[in-house]
Amino acid sequence: MRIIGIDPGTGILGFGVIDVDKNGKCTLVDAGVIRTPVKEDETIRLQTIFEELCAIIDNCNPTEMAVEKLFFAQNVTTAMGVAQARGVAIVAGTQASLKVSEYTPLQIKQALTGYGRADKKQMQEMVRILLGLKDVPQPDDCADALATAITHAMTSKVK
Amino acid sequence: MRIIGIDPGTGILGFGVIDVDKNGKCTLVDAGVIRTPVKEDETIRLQTIFEELCAIIDNCNPTEMAVEKLFFAQNVTTAMGVAQARGVAIVAGTQASLKVSEYTPLQIKQALTGYGRADKKQMQEMVRILLGLKDVPQPDDCADALATAITHAMTSKVK
Repeated sequence: MRIIGIDPGTGILGFGVIDVDKNGKCTLVDAGVIRTPVKEDETIRLQTIFEELCAIIDNCNPTEMAVEKLFFAQNVTTAMGVAQARGVAIVAGTQASLKVSEYTPLQIKQALTGYGRADKKQMQEMVRILLGLKDVPQPDDCADALATAITHAMTSKVK
Repeated sequence: MRIIGIDPGTGILGFGVIDVDKNGKCTLVDAGVIRTPVKEDETIRLQTIFEELCAIIDNCNPTEMAVEKLFFAQNVTTAMGVAQARGVAIVAGTQASLKVSEYTPLQIKQALTGYGRADKKQMQEMVRILLGLKDVPQPDDCADALATAITHAMTSKVK
């Protein structure tokens, strides 16, 4: 099973692609970010995210997508920027016939560390260990996207 | 110029298509809503919105899209549902090569009534009058979408 994990955002959207074998072992395939300039028109930024993500999916050929889901946020404007990028990412997945699943930050923390209040550093360290990497993938958005993909690997039946 | 206006939402997304002649006169082409069931998986709902909206665009063949834009909301969960549907609607527009513009509720109210604090009933009545209709288009989401399209007609150079 090949999973693409998404950490949505309009300014920076993280993605991380992993392979999962039948024993549940995860290996890194690719990870990176899609950046769009703040000065650019919002509609153009969303178009860029959609088109770049479609190209990444086409290139990496995952079968499933896992997207981080927020239920609330302190800053509504930020939350809405994240939400509209999430909508775009989900449609990029469904249009490529991927099965798309959503995970809350709590679910991701619990899956990776067994502890719902794990901090960012602990999470990144678990991503590094679980993928057998020397260093934590950078920037943070990549590590967050990979954490979401690993959560999906751990919680779904491996094919 | 043919404009499709969008009042975004996950449960119900309103659309309204108008023609604008060189004198700025607007006429109704089509209006309706895309509904998705609350019980359905969110990713499936977004996919449905995208596919139905793409079909409506393909059928009505507008050249421009106008989308209502929110900057804040009292309920963050609702705001995020609206925002992700908005992201999906914008991408449906850009993928069909439409020029996409966004308008805040304040801009829409000012364009239609010259008054930024007009109430819903006043707005709907203006939509009815400006389109020369006997009745206000129903449901409200249609009228809101048409108001957004009319705002775009009034604020952009008619071709």
